[in-house]
Amino acid sequence: MLFLALVHYPTVNKEGRTVTTSVTNFDIHDISRAARTYGVTSYFIITPVELQQQFTRRIMNHWLEGSGGLYNPSRKEALEGVDIASDLAEAGDVIFGKHGRHPVWIATSAKKYPNSINCGQLKSKLENDPEQPICLVFGTGYGLHPQIIELADHILEPIRGRDGWNHLSVRSAVSIYLDRLLAST
Amino acid sequence: MLFLALVHYPTVNKEGRTVTTSVTNFDIHDISRAARTYGVTSYFIITPVELQQQFTRRIMNHWLEGSGGLYNPSRKEALEGVDIASDLAEAGDVIFGKHGRHPVWIATSAKKYPNSINCGQLKSKLENDPEQPICLVFGTGYGLHPQIIELADHILEPIRGRDGWNHLSVRSAVSIYLDRLLAST
Repeated sequence: MLFLALVHYPTVNKEGRTVTTSVTNFDIHDISRAARTYGVTSYFIITPVELQQQFTRRIMNHWLEGSGGLYNPSRKEALEGVDIASDLAEAGDVIFGKHGRHPVWIATSAKKYPNSINCGQLKSKLENDPEQPICLVFGTGYGLHPQIIELADHILEPIRGRDGWNHLSVRSAVSIYLDRLLAST
Repeated sequence: MLFLALVHYPTVNKEGRTVTTSVTNFDIHDISRAARTYGVTSYFIITPVELQQQFTRRIMNHWLEGSGGLYNPSRKEALEGVDIASDLAEAGDVIFGKHGRHPVWIATSAKKYPNSINCGQLKSKLENDPEQPICLVFGTGYGLHPQIIELADHILEPIRGRDGWNHLSVRSAVSIYLDRLLAST
């Protein structure tokens, strides 16, 4: 049972300083559509900023309750899998409340860590215990704050580019990992 | 040798009518970054609308020549692989001019066609004749106009969702296909 979390705080900027990023419309739509495609249970947008939560809810409501859902029902269906939480602890509580087990946290990073696990290993975990919630955590900005990476149970191997170039958008990275982990082929 | 083309005309809308879509900033950035990651030779943004070409060029120039490239050199590097063309014929001429061979055109669609080829077959084509240009063609809006699908040499199998749901963003679809075709693992 796979979950996604997209973290807007704490993340780091280019200089490695702790920053809060803004939620973007494309991150809501592209990632919810990929999540729905591959059968992700919930996609959490993580931000502690009340105004950002309101912004996210307003966009979601346009598609869930407003004219958007009538115009494009598949957008509505994708957004039904989206949830908003202030931090990962709150997302973990929601998962525990609904599914009775605490999630295993898997951080993602463009950097390789000595204790990284690869997609094949994570795929086996998902298949061997389908009832265990596993939450893939993505950072915005220049990536997750080190404290999230340290607290995660595992770190997923980066997606390697042709010659070490790895500046994928988070939307691309999520899509590629979901295909590697959950494609039915 | 793989190329990408993102078509803004002719495409179809929800009702199947022929439409011209607008170039979006996210399509320029996300797809050029994925293309650079996987070693795509060029990514063509296809629009016959002069104002849309100017808009695209203005965004590109900000990163290629303006302050954007100093701030974020990896964006500059990604956009160096982007080209603009009025239609697929013009993109084909550019490819022929630079590489001496006409491209094989591979249309993509969320629908399955009887003569679809799968990613494994296309991967073999790329590996068996690395000097042959192959251009993957993606539609915006509700997809490529049927005339482009009919004129293509092959149609690539759709990315199948869990229960037939296939409403991925074009940015996600490009990223997933590139990973399936070109990942070094």
